[in-house]
Amino acid sequence: MRLLFTPQLNPASESGWRRRWFDIIFRHDTPPARNFDLLLIVAIVVSVVVIMLDSDPWLHVDHARVLYAIEWGFTLLFTAEYVMRLLVVKRPLRYALSFWGFIDLFSILPTYLSLLFPGSQALLVVRVLRMLRLFRILKLTQYVEESGVLISALWRSRRKIFLFVVSLLTIAVIFGALMYVIEGPERGFSTIPTGMYWAIVTMATVGYGDISPQTPGGRFIASVLILIGYSIIAVPTGIYTAELASSLREAGSGDEHHDHRGCPECGLEGHDPDASHCRGCGHRLPARMG
Amino acid sequence: MRLLFTPQLNPASESGWRRRWFDIIFRHDTPPARNFDLLLIVAIVVSVVVIMLDSDPWLHVDHARVLYAIEWGFTLLFTAEYVMRLLVVKRPLRYALSFWGFIDLFSILPTYLSLLFPGSQALLVVRVLRMLRLFRILKLTQYVEESGVLISALWRSRRKIFLFVVSLLTIAVIFGALMYVIEGPERGFSTIPTGMYWAIVTMATVGYGDISPQTPGGRFIASVLILIGYSIIAVPTGIYTAELASSLREAGSGDEHHDHRGCPECGLEGHDPDASHCRGCGHRLPARMG
Amino acid sequence: MRLLFTPQLNPASESGWRRRWFDIIFRHDTPPARNFDLLLIVAIVVSVVVIMLDSDPWLHVDHARVLYAIEWGFTLLFTAEYVMRLLVVKRPLRYALSFWGFIDLFSILPTYLSLLFPGSQALLVVRVLRMLRLFRILKLTQYVEESGVLISALWRSRRKIFLFVVSLLTIAVIFGALMYVIEGPERGFSTIPTGMYWAIVTMATVGYGDISPQTPGGRFIASVLILIGYSIIAVPTGIYTAELASSLREAGSGDEHHDHRGCPECGLEGHDPDASHCRGCGHRLPARMG
Amino acid sequence: MRLLFTPQLNPASESGWRRRWFDIIFRHDTPPARNFDLLLIVAIVVSVVVIMLDSDPWLHVDHARVLYAIEWGFTLLFTAEYVMRLLVVKRPLRYALSFWGFIDLFSILPTYLSLLFPGSQALLVVRVLRMLRLFRILKLTQYVEESGVLISALWRSRRKIFLFVVSLLTIAVIFGALMYVIEGPERGFSTIPTGMYWAIVTMATVGYGDISPQTPGGRFIASVLILIGYSIIAVPTGIYTAELASSLREAGSGDEHHDHRGCPECGLEGHDPDASHCRGCGHRLPARMG
Repeated sequence: MRLLFTPQLNPASESGWRRRWFDIIFRHDTPPARNFDLLLIVAIVVSVVVIMLDSDPWLHVDHARVLYAIEWGFTLLFTAEYVMRLLVVKRPLRYALSFWGFIDLFSILPTYLSLLFPGSQALLVVRVLRMLRLFRILKLTQYVEESGVLISALWRSRRKIFLFVVSLLTIAVIFGALMYVIEGPERGFSTIPTGMYWAIVTMATVGYGDISPQTPGGRFIASVLILIGYSIIAVPTGIYTAELASSLREAGSGDEHHDHRGCPECGLEGHDPDASHCRGCGHRLPARMG
Repeated sequence: MRLLFTPQLNPASESGWRRRWFDIIFRHDTPPARNFDLLLIVAIVVSVVVIMLDSDPWLHVDHARVLYAIEWGFTLLFTAEYVMRLLVVKRPLRYALSFWGFIDLFSILPTYLSLLFPGSQALLVVRVLRMLRLFRILKLTQYVEESGVLISALWRSRRKIFLFVVSLLTIAVIFGALMYVIEGPERGFSTIPTGMYWAIVTMATVGYGDISPQTPGGRFIASVLILIGYSIIAVPTGIYTAELASSLREAGSGDEHHDHRGCPECGLEGHDPDASHCRGCGHRLPARMG
Repeated sequence: MRLLFTPQLNPASESGWRRRWFDIIFRHDTPPARNFDLLLIVAIVVSVVVIMLDSDPWLHVDHARVLYAIEWGFTLLFTAEYVMRLLVVKRPLRYALSFWGFIDLFSILPTYLSLLFPGSQALLVVRVLRMLRLFRILKLTQYVEESGVLISALWRSRRKIFLFVVSLLTIAVIFGALMYVIEGPERGFSTIPTGMYWAIVTMATVGYGDISPQTPGGRFIASVLILIGYSIIAVPTGIYTAELASSLREAGSGDEHHDHRGCPECGLEGHDPDASHCRGCGHRLPARMG
Repeated sequence: MRLLFTPQLNPASESGWRRRWFDIIFRHDTPPARNFDLLLIVAIVVSVVVIMLDSDPWLHVDHARVLYAIEWGFTLLFTAEYVMRLLVVKRPLRYALSFWGFIDLFSILPTYLSLLFPGSQALLVVRVLRMLRLFRILKLTQYVEESGVLISALWRSRRKIFLFVVSLLTIAVIFGALMYVIEGPERGFSTIPTGMYWAIVTMATVGYGDISPQTPGGRFIASVLILIGYSIIAVPTGIYTAELASSLREAGSGDEHHDHRGCPECGLEGHDPDASHCRGCGHRLPARMG
């Protein structure tokens, strides 16, 4: 979880401009850092909107040059930001190889690649992944507690959800094969994987209708599958509700803001509220504040 | 919340007809006020039904004049009501600028505008928003407690639901762009926003089928998106259920049976609403108030 | 609730064959009564299946005479049962005018009517309502407790569910009218009620796709409606889960089988487990057994 | 439940190769047994994938001989495994007649049958049922507790879910018949069972759209059915959530953190899985086992 949602905030040892920029880029609790975050969100949203507009054939033809210029503007801006991040962080390689480092890189790469391979413009859509950055920023605002509760409940449900997905896929294989046999290729169930796609679309109650049973037998099997899906749609909800209720209860009992103490020796965070020693190195932890 | 659901009941200082009409229009707990509310609901429902009927091309042609007359009748009635509200309320401007004031105005304006601009008749549909007034009235009846519990649970979930919607949109952008690249405009995914529309329709398990994947790759991506949507459909339910359970617990800790009678003999409370004798000592209970 | 789910078991005062048949038909806890119930369920299911088969045009043509004969067989059987019910019950009129009395009558009437009006055969489908009788019978078997818990939770949620349905309809009117204006009759949104039908189909995540938005504006409105629907789909689940959890807790606390004591004076049932006097007449209740 | 999910592990009394193979095949907690399980899963998944690929008409034509060979390879492998299971188990007949015995047999039979009846190749899809074996194996790994909680909650809800399905079918019969009468065969509702199929597809919010109401009356009935379905979709979720919460509470009262290490110094338990030092006294914790 730490890997996914908190970037490594390596302390920039040197004072001077690097420290100043590190504070602006990697911290989120000072006025300049907040302004930087806000600007970044706006830039990401605008650049994603531009990519979306560019996908419209009419707009693309009429405003190709303007959109291309804006495209390059954002690419250079995000490149400058990426280079700055590499400069001010203590271990640049570790950042570059982290989840966020990859996303930051992939969100500028396609524009440069399109100089070499004209057709690679379609890869630009990868930039939308930068919108995930919103969460990192929100995490440090007033939403931190809420998202923490939601994610920890999801995280604790991960094994149950995995089991659930495996069951779902097993049922999909069986019913997909059944429908392949009963309805056959001439009614849209052209292969067993197509049948599985239909079974997933059906069980999840999406029901596009691009493929649907037409024989009485197929409709009976479909009804059975729907009832099975209807009965087990309760499972993920039940899992998540139960875990969330327990998360909320924990969050509400005594300490709502979790534990912000970092170990003074090794920097590890996320200790239990009642911990007096670091669970990583055994060093004594500072007393809790509120 | 007050801004949304309770109008400012400014006490009309003067006695006389203003006070009387204020009581009728803005209060909801005296017999004349209740009759006024009831009439208003009926008038709103009937006028909305008339607008609906007028939208039917056959009815419109056959009964254009009658429908037009009824239309003007309701407009004049609601105009009179709107003027009366302005007259009896202490600060008319504040009412006019409130949420309900705007809805009341917008529900009569289109008919007058249609005199100047013949095509603006379509704007009449705004009147249906007046049906929201139902809630304001219901709020003051026996449903007040129930709706209070439902709304306060929603209100307390607002941040979590916002986070949830942001995540949903992020996933929609990513998968919409993916499908735009994989399936392409020739299979209905004409732009990235169209892909987002498809992704939202899919994740929410609506699945119109107006656009659906046709290549094996697209179907695989769709299945993954469906499983993601299926897994996180539990989130809003979980959030709301947990909050509602806590709301109910709070609401219930005071009086669960909604019967406030205490036994005059032994003081026991919590009787069934239909009880006429104390279940503890058998003494006759007082009659219920309403 | 009593009106809906328990028939009036008027004690047949006379001994003899009436009492015997009353016990068989209206009671459910002796071996002959159980056999009668079982036979009745089988007869209902078979007769409904026959009606279903008869709706198939191929079967109807090939086996018209056999199906017609079976049809009359079941009608005469159910008529005999209906007459017997009227004979043995103490107040036949009250039974005939009760919910179950009407269903019993309507399930035999269409066959007789088809003698006078040949086209009324389609009304035979009313008989399927007799399948609801299953619940009455199940109520008296081992499923009584389970269904009691489910129904009482639904019953206690009735006001909240009513509020929820009213909100849903209000949203449906507003969005239906919006889509009627935006998409217009040429794209399937022919009238405002049609738009409401589309909005309900969308919000409930059914999504047939027979009508779907085709303009970018309409698709945006549809996405907003879907997100609203997605957010409030949690409401009925939340309501029901919270009520059910509380029902289960009550059912589980001390006495699982509710309270079977009837007042020796006035016969009222459904007392609180801790009641020592009848809440209807104040007479002392017998001590509880288990 | 034992019948469904745990095979009879009859202790093989004889020592020697039988006991060794019994341990490998039927136990799951020694290194060789785990490797065997892993190989078996891989073989099942690969053979199912091959069947899926073979269902693709293009692949079938191009690689018919290779796929046929692989098919026979897996069949011989699973035959050898089946024979070995019969040899080492104490009561071979009991195994052969068990749920798993039948699935093991049915997953090899179709290939042999296709020698006699060339057309029976389609029956091969039965092999996908072997994927259910995944659960048996997972059950004995770290997922045991999670799946136990999920299944026991489902098991305890079985009666309520049965009642729910019966209600659903009753509503489906009534509305299916209604739509058959209102919309009629010329709009797709060709028989009452077809109407039931439509009603189930609608209530479960699948909504293929292959059959959909087209008359105003039919659309009104459909909207009512959707609202009913929308209201009762909460029921299975409510049932399951309530049961799961109670299951979790039971399961959680013993050990919640799944870390069984006690501090050798102060005895404190409940450490995080990644902790290397006691959070109470800072003493080094023993290494984790599992």
